Amino acid sequence: MRIFSTFVFHRRQQIFNLRQFQTTTILRNPISIAPIQIPMDATEQSLRQSLSEKSSSVEAQGNAVRALKASRAAKPEIDAAIEQLNKLKLEKSTVEKELQSIISSSGNGSLNREAFRKAVVNTLERRLFYIPSFKIYSGVAGLFDYGPPGCAIKSNVLSFWRQHFILEENMLEVDCPCVTPEVVLKASGHVDKFTDLMVKDEKTGTCYRADHLLKDYCTEKLEKDLTISAEKAAELKDVLAVMEDFSPEQLGAKIREYGITAPDTKNPLSDPYPFNLMFQTSIGPSGLIPGYMRPETAQGIFVNFKDLYYYNGKKLPFAAAQIGQAFRNEISPRQGLLRVREFTLAEIEHFVDPENKSHPKFSDVAKLEFLMFPREEQMSGQSAKKLCLGEAVAKGTVNNETLGYFIGRVYLFLTRLGIDKERLRFRQHLANEMAHYAADCWDAEIESSYGWIECVGIADRSAYDLRAHSDKSGTPLVAEEKFAEPKEVEKLVITPVKKELGLAFKGNQKNVVESLEAMNEEEAMEMKATLESKGEVEFYVCTLKKSVNIKKNMVSISKEKKKEHQRVFTPSVIEPSFGIGRIIYCLYEHCFSTRPSKAGDEQLNLFRFPPLVAPIKCTVFPLVQNQQFEEVAKVISKELASVGISHKIDITGTSIGKRYARTDELGVPFAITVDSDTSVTIRERDSKDQVRVTLKEAASVVSSVSEGKMTWQDVWATFPHHSSAAADE
Amino acid sequence: MRIFSTFVFHRRQQIFNLRQFQTTTILRNPISIAPIQIPMDATEQSLRQSLSEKSSSVEAQGNAVRALKASRAAKPEIDAAIEQLNKLKLEKSTVEKELQSIISSSGNGSLNREAFRKAVVNTLERRLFYIPSFKIYSGVAGLFDYGPPGCAIKSNVLSFWRQHFILEENMLEVDCPCVTPEVVLKASGHVDKFTDLMVKDEKTGTCYRADHLLKDYCTEKLEKDLTISAEKAAELKDVLAVMEDFSPEQLGAKIREYGITAPDTKNPLSDPYPFNLMFQTSIGPSGLIPGYMRPETAQGIFVNFKDLYYYNGKKLPFAAAQIGQAFRNEISPRQGLLRVREFTLAEIEHFVDPENKSHPKFSDVAKLEFLMFPREEQMSGQSAKKLCLGEAVAKGTVNNETLGYFIGRVYLFLTRLGIDKERLRFRQHLANEMAHYAADCWDAEIESSYGWIECVGIADRSAYDLRAHSDKSGTPLVAEEKFAEPKEVEKLVITPVKKELGLAFKGNQKNVVESLEAMNEEEAMEMKATLESKGEVEFYVCTLKKSVNIKKNMVSISKEKKKEHQRVFTPSVIEPSFGIGRIIYCLYEHCFSTRPSKAGDEQLNLFRFPPLVAPIKCTVFPLVQNQQFEEVAKVISKELASVGISHKIDITGTSIGKRYARTDELGVPFAITVDSDTSVTIRERDSKDQVRVTLKEAASVVSSVSEGKMTWQDVWATFPHHSSAAADE
Repeated sequence: MRIFSTFVFHRRQQIFNLRQFQTTTILRNPISIAPIQIPMDATEQSLRQSLSEKSSSVEAQGNAVRALKASRAAKPEIDAAIEQLNKLKLEKSTVEKELQSIISSSGNGSLNREAFRKAVVNTLERRLFYIPSFKIYSGVAGLFDYGPPGCAIKSNVLSFWRQHFILEENMLEVDCPCVTPEVVLKASGHVDKFTDLMVKDEKTGTCYRADHLLKDYCTEKLEKDLTISAEKAAELKDVLAVMEDFSPEQLGAKIREYGITAPDTKNPLSDPYPFNLMFQTSIGPSGLIPGYMRPETAQGIFVNFKDLYYYNGKKLPFAAAQIGQAFRNEISPRQGLLRVREFTLAEIEHFVDPENKSHPKFSDVAKLEFLMFPREEQMSGQSAKKLCLGEAVAKGTVNNETLGYFIGRVYLFLTRLGIDKERLRFRQHLANEMAHYAADCWDAEIESSYGWIECVGIADRSAYDLRAHSDKSGTPLVAEEKFAEPKEVEKLVITPVKKELGLAFKGNQKNVVESLEAMNEEEAMEMKATLESKGEVEFYVCTLKKSVNIKKNMVSISKEKKKEHQRVFTPSVIEPSFGIGRIIYCLYEHCFSTRPSKAGDEQLNLFRFPPLVAPIKCTVFPLVQNQQFEEVAKVISKELASVGISHKIDITGTSIGKRYARTDELGVPFAITVDSDTSVTIRERDSKDQVRVTLKEAASVVSSVSEGKMTWQDVWATFPHHSSAAADE
Repeated sequence: MRIFSTFVFHRRQQIFNLRQFQTTTILRNPISIAPIQIPMDATEQSLRQSLSEKSSSVEAQGNAVRALKASRAAKPEIDAAIEQLNKLKLEKSTVEKELQSIISSSGNGSLNREAFRKAVVNTLERRLFYIPSFKIYSGVAGLFDYGPPGCAIKSNVLSFWRQHFILEENMLEVDCPCVTPEVVLKASGHVDKFTDLMVKDEKTGTCYRADHLLKDYCTEKLEKDLTISAEKAAELKDVLAVMEDFSPEQLGAKIREYGITAPDTKNPLSDPYPFNLMFQTSIGPSGLIPGYMRPETAQGIFVNFKDLYYYNGKKLPFAAAQIGQAFRNEISPRQGLLRVREFTLAEIEHFVDPENKSHPKFSDVAKLEFLMFPREEQMSGQSAKKLCLGEAVAKGTVNNETLGYFIGRVYLFLTRLGIDKERLRFRQHLANEMAHYAADCWDAEIESSYGWIECVGIADRSAYDLRAHSDKSGTPLVAEEKFAEPKEVEKLVITPVKKELGLAFKGNQKNVVESLEAMNEEEAMEMKATLESKGEVEFYVCTLKKSVNIKKNMVSISKEKKKEHQRVFTPSVIEPSFGIGRIIYCLYEHCFSTRPSKAGDEQLNLFRFPPLVAPIKCTVFPLVQNQQFEEVAKVISKELASVGISHKIDITGTSIGKRYARTDELGVPFAITVDSDTSVTIRERDSKDQVRVTLKEAASVVSSVSEGKMTWQDVWATFPHHSSAAADE
């Protein structure tokens, strides 16, 4: 079921995995920005064009009429000109109406989306799936509690994640603290680069996210201002598409160009400047050890690489995983449950030999087909399309088998949770979205009322993270490949003759020695040749910022054959990173539905959660309040407990139809209704179908169908059907 | 198995649930401190007494000898005096040796404990049960990671907690953020009172916990200085016992009295001053909203009381629960995994009508018998003893049934995890340990190499927390009891006559009105009587800090009968609070054991974890490396997976004995060894016994015995025994 149409033009989401900030630095050089051509809807474009032409014609004809009148022309001539003017005005008005209707239809789309979202969110809040945190103290933007059904769902999602990834793939789970000393996040780059651009109201000091203001301006202009030209509209759409890559200067320039002011006060705004999104704190009593609440869980894994590698018997590949809280001090959180200041991440770091990224289990997922959105399709304005994963890897669309394997596993994970596969796509990062060191990145994006939301990032980050921590900590985070037989390799040997160099360069000797030793093979062999032919050579020493004269007796350069017993290398890391809260929110939207009550007088809400994630699997209802039925209900409850099925007894006197409606709204898939002491009925939530089973069968049937050992179709085919006039009023 | 003897003298642990700091404020008034008389070991006392007497005798006799010599007394007289001196010296030396041996035997006890702890901790660290966090950056004191087996155990403990408490008791689970705005923690009292006392090295600025320094001084003096008198020893022991209740002034006075200096530099120390243990941060970009990382999870539940009460159909009692991270910026963390700066708490807040604290399921636990340590026994120097829970509640030793019910459930929880019931006791808080509002508190304490450790606090906190948040937030956090029939009650009605009061007191009218309305029944009825007899009365107005003259026409006071339809009240809360990391650490110690290898040449470590918490339940070993056995192992692995038993295949060529030893050290309870393609053996870890089962039976037998449906005794009685010469080398 599609609630609303797919956005035609995809906007690049603000990246979820902000470790890709390394790309931003590069992009801050305006030269490297390659704005993407966003194809504007052809009709809209031609209408804006036509409206602008008609306006010019009307103006020209108006002038003509005035000129005729001024020159006291003949009345028929003036009348003809006026008639022509009215005709042109009519044409202009027709075009105007047409354009208005096109813009507002996309506007209506967003109205529908908002109405749908409101219905979902109202239900979620009323049934305590979530609660704005610290509500009695007016709350804090971007902080939410999970209430009882939300907790149960989160716990089910995390259990399944642990089962699907950690247990089935034999991953090494770790659990690291949230409080992290600065040195770790300095090495990872977060201290310097984990920022958003902020502007301040110059008079009140109120802070805004600079890109939000620019985005709001462009969106409103496009939706409400019919007078802007097709060129202007195209420009605004282009700004929307590329603004994430803007440098502070570019963003500031646009804000000034468009005359954007503080939304609340209309005061002028400061220039944009970076605000670090980490919550800062201080470790220990001295106040001297700065620390942060981790913005992701991955760093805890990287710093443990060495221990984990040994634990795994020094074998590659292996994966480590972590589930835990992460923190981002958002400037002004919007988008409800999707952009929050504290959230649960589940991250995998799969360490692999960069020279061999094949995956032994790739064939298990190779035949899967689902929506993929490769770079080329995005650049050429096409939309996502169904591809076979095996082919995508074979053709090189997906960089390697291991990355492909995880894409497939993520697809299975999300769809088994209940994510609609028609509203799930894997979008490849564009070249300018990716960090410079990354080999390839794909985001699992789920369509929601907020648009396409990045919920899982799957990145081949090459050796970047391990190298960064090796460098800063001085602990080599490397793997070794022992050769079955020693290999003979030719190695460049550069031996500076320190005595001669010391005599020649005195205090600069050390710099010269280091520069000589740092030469690559080509440079060294060229120097060798020059020294042999000319006896000396000019050599530029970086650290001295000048050239020096190197003589033949100052350095010996040769190639020597050596036997090597092993290869030492920094593993590549492939990182699937899951935003658990975002997945759960999208799941809420995908599972939410309404249907008329039996009397047809109201719309009833239901969540069509698969049993795997449903907060409880089954309710037990004595049909009417009596001792005998309550005893039977207790017997069934005990049996359900013994087979590990979470359930609840509801012995309130409310009508059975109302009780069904109440649990439908919590997404409980099955209800056992006790209406005798020998047999009971089982009702399935989505179909509202009921079967009759004996008392003894009840728990085992519900258990089988909850745990996926049977489908409801099997149950329906096996047991006598039951229809109840009283039910589902 | 008891590894080391119980501490004879129990030291009150630094309280785990620091919300009991409210007690501290009271205790800061030195008058209210009632130091507990710690009975010193009688032998030690008499030896110290005797040593001091002998020393005096030796000194006196020495003086006598010198006097005789000076007076040139006769030689035989002098010789006799010298003989007597030597005899006294010998006696003194004997007593000295005896005392030394007694002190060092208790010292040896602590040496044994330390050696044991070292063995456990080495194994835990080597097998990555835990890892010091950020190790490659030299770590941060008080922060630890869980490695793979540690994570699996934690996950098992939390699953069981969720099953045992949340599911079985139908609790409402919530999941709130760690980042908490100041207003919430101001209301709870943490901002003002969640502190430890700190001293600084006056020259270097290094910080120490003041009580640690005093404790170290006393302990060392008692253990190493034989010359201190019995009185001095008793004083030091007394200080150790009561120092937790010292005010900053008292602590500072003791530090000065004993001349304690900075341990590293011997520099003088500052006066003790309170240091707040919360990690502080700032929410949002403005820097204007102070926040903290929560020091406990309970506040998140209290602030949601109203929503949860409605969710529960406005019925009491009900319980809410939360599992999550909590943070404490310890001044100088010691005691390894027991005192950390970030940890997982699992907390329950059970809301109950203060007028009815009975529990419908109390009979389920009433017959349990276990070690309890009531207040009286502690005060009179006795030790913990086995009591029947039902009797303890009936006699009023435990305040009420609900508190008793949770004590019983906690006992079942801990012992099912594998905590040794002989080293688990429930200790009641002494009157001066408890917050003034608390009705009763019991700690589940587990004995470890660090002594008796508080792992679970179970407190009846009355209405304190809900009232605090009602007051600060202005949202009434109350429950209602609707009466079946309206009840007639007599109510005090105070009606200030504002016109008269305005004329008399002008601008002060409001203060007078408020003070009049705030009178309690007794005060009001007394005023009424005086007004009726004398026509006027002197009345002290707090907010004006003076008395005013109230005349008869200024206020009307009466008692009126009213019909009430409901009772509105603040529920009491009973709070079991679990330190998950502490429980796990104690579990490690209780399950750790060593036994000689078969050859008898080394000691092998094992963890005797019950299957419930074991990191994996089963290993599958092909006896030798061959294709056929590996295929069989894969078949068994698939079957184990299908019945949900976590397991691992180990196909390394290592000897089977070594592979058994390796998994014993991880605490894996069962091993399936494949030595044919029709049958396999199953080995149990603790007994090392093996049975032979058919290939088809293997998975289901391991599953039954792992999930507690069968015991190993049942398995042993059912299947043919197997003995292997190769095994357990």
